[in-house]
Amino acid sequence: MSSVPGWVADERLARAAWSRLIEPPDDVAVAVVEALGASESLSRVLTGRRLLPEGSSRPRLTAAVARWRVRLRDVDPERDLRSVGRCGGRVVVPGDAEWPRCLDDLQLARPVCLWVRGERSPAEAVERSVAIVGTRSPTAYGEHVAGDLAAGVGDRGLTVVSGAALGIDGVAHRGAFAVGAPTVAVLAGGVDRLYPEAHAPLLCRIAEEGLLVSEQAPGASPMKHRFLARNRLIAGLSQATVVVEAAWRSGAISTARRAAEIGRPVGAVPGPVTSATSAGCHRLLRDGVATCVSDAGEVVELTASIGATQPVLPQVPVEDHDDLDPLTLRVLEALPVRRGRGTDSLARVAGLTDREASAALGRLELAGLAVRGAGPEGVTWRRAAR
Amino acid sequence: MSSVPGWVADERLARAAWSRLIEPPDDVAVAVVEALGASESLSRVLTGRRLLPEGSSRPRLTAAVARWRVRLRDVDPERDLRSVGRCGGRVVVPGDAEWPRCLDDLQLARPVCLWVRGERSPAEAVERSVAIVGTRSPTAYGEHVAGDLAAGVGDRGLTVVSGAALGIDGVAHRGAFAVGAPTVAVLAGGVDRLYPEAHAPLLCRIAEEGLLVSEQAPGASPMKHRFLARNRLIAGLSQATVVVEAAWRSGAISTARRAAEIGRPVGAVPGPVTSATSAGCHRLLRDGVATCVSDAGEVVELTASIGATQPVLPQVPVEDHDDLDPLTLRVLEALPVRRGRGTDSLARVAGLTDREASAALGRLELAGLAVRGAGPEGVTWRRAAR
Repeated sequence: MSSVPGWVADERLARAAWSRLIEPPDDVAVAVVEALGASESLSRVLTGRRLLPEGSSRPRLTAAVARWRVRLRDVDPERDLRSVGRCGGRVVVPGDAEWPRCLDDLQLARPVCLWVRGERSPAEAVERSVAIVGTRSPTAYGEHVAGDLAAGVGDRGLTVVSGAALGIDGVAHRGAFAVGAPTVAVLAGGVDRLYPEAHAPLLCRIAEEGLLVSEQAPGASPMKHRFLARNRLIAGLSQATVVVEAAWRSGAISTARRAAEIGRPVGAVPGPVTSATSAGCHRLLRDGVATCVSDAGEVVELTASIGATQPVLPQVPVEDHDDLDPLTLRVLEALPVRRGRGTDSLARVAGLTDREASAALGRLELAGLAVRGAGPEGVTWRRAAR
Repeated sequence: MSSVPGWVADERLARAAWSRLIEPPDDVAVAVVEALGASESLSRVLTGRRLLPEGSSRPRLTAAVARWRVRLRDVDPERDLRSVGRCGGRVVVPGDAEWPRCLDDLQLARPVCLWVRGERSPAEAVERSVAIVGTRSPTAYGEHVAGDLAAGVGDRGLTVVSGAALGIDGVAHRGAFAVGAPTVAVLAGGVDRLYPEAHAPLLCRIAEEGLLVSEQAPGASPMKHRFLARNRLIAGLSQATVVVEAAWRSGAISTARRAAEIGRPVGAVPGPVTSATSAGCHRLLRDGVATCVSDAGEVVELTASIGATQPVLPQVPVEDHDDLDPLTLRVLEALPVRRGRGTDSLARVAGLTDREASAALGRLELAGLAVRGAGPEGVTWRRAAR
């Protein structure tokens, strides 16, 4: 049994610590943090206590805990905060005013916290925003269009979100700068790692005038699989996603598909059918995932159509619920099938305290039995479709 | 009163004569020809007899008859047949084995006959076919893609239908020739008028190896408004229509929209958003009228989707039916609302001879009260949606 350091009691520090433990997206971590709170769940991981009631049998949870424990020795959120603070960064957690609640649409794939560099509030920066993404090897045509679109949507008061990669991403950020519009770069590694190196000056400028965002703790290296994980954050942090040039298989296409999955409008810029770098865009058009967009006006129209498309919810793990404890079963039975209901209302229906209902909802979400949504008065819950 | 020449009794010659009288599409002419037969209706026009029962009040019909009568002096179908025969042409009418029944989808906008040059049967030539249309001023890119697509679908055994215009149309016909595939040119003027002049050699080759088709009688000049009318025939004669390059407003876009109206799949080839000649294609994609197509394989897929789209029926004139005669009312009442029914079956239900039912159906179609469809055993009829 490890001992529990004092900082664990601090929810913000505990979430920061979680971001060091896990390899996102980690639906199990998100669910246990939600169910028990970041401090309590982390404390249980640190001390080897059970995260779920006695008698529960959850092979995925057991495997996840084993993986988290591997990184326990690296966990030092006070050091991480000092480290990110040295480059003007901070951590933002759910509940903070500057937490972008649009990330809730990612369901169990949402991040446990965001590490950010820049003075802007992430919530405000992405409130009206478009992701402009594309290939790292664009044609002159693609660069031209990406720059034009970014400047055009920036001119219309929208934030340009992208991944700071070589090619289209870089052009998109620069297009925003060209018109003095805010821009947000979502990184695959820590916000203190200026990657790609060739974009170090651009990244510095974004940190100063815009916002660098990552769910990875400071110092985390931009490993290959983290780009795929990062793409879902680009989708989740933007009202709409536009792909400018992308090959048949590419990261930008994955970003677009994630955006569509969470119900965000997707645009694709067409190009010559003879250009391999437009094949991915044409594929999105053909598959009905994307709308054809030719200029900034059409991109802004796209953001206005948010909510008009039906989200294709990402698949959540569905487990047997024979082993749910009686209190959790009461909450499950209280869950409406269609319209979501707030936690306090569910607690009343189930005859439980808010805290007990919250914990039960976290367990149900982990088991793929409850789905969160957003209502006018905050988070709502409904039964997952089976 | 004019006298009635002997040839009027010949339905084929009478239809040929009708094509000289009217300016297509002429829904009134099509309906009266259907109701009374080409000979009887023409004979009534020639002699000034009523086309519909006594007491009927049909301002559109009266106006139409007045217009037809203006051209009566030009009518000489025997001369027209001799004239078209000199260049190897003939007239094809509904009921002929080589009549393309796909034209029925044009409803009251269908032609009264087709003038053709070429040995092939029009029905067989267009049985598996794609229209490839586009701007008269293509870019090198558009020409390249149009040629590739035409050759590609030709290679796969499809006929390339187009309008023989300069630009994309010409490239499409040539692409078919390049792979020895059949090609059909639908003309705005008579099939003996090789227009545009610059395409005279191409048109001669199409007449020899493919098929020239027009609803205009020989010698008819390719007047501007006839191109728009011609576009609906291109749509009606093809299983699918693909637009390669087209400006925001253009004839090719009108062809595509007509194709969509009659339930035929439409494809659009994307291009650079910086190219004005692709703006029309992108508009079709954005409006959901067209599917994005990048190569011949995708175009062939499109033809396979025929029937998967719901036709948007062209608006037919709806008139008051207080003045329908009792026999016609009986047929109206016999008309099913959903599934079409054959003329003989309707005649039985209404207690009329087939001939009486046919005439009544023509009147009902003219009044916008009956809609024809195609059943496994021929033409079927149903009530028009109000």
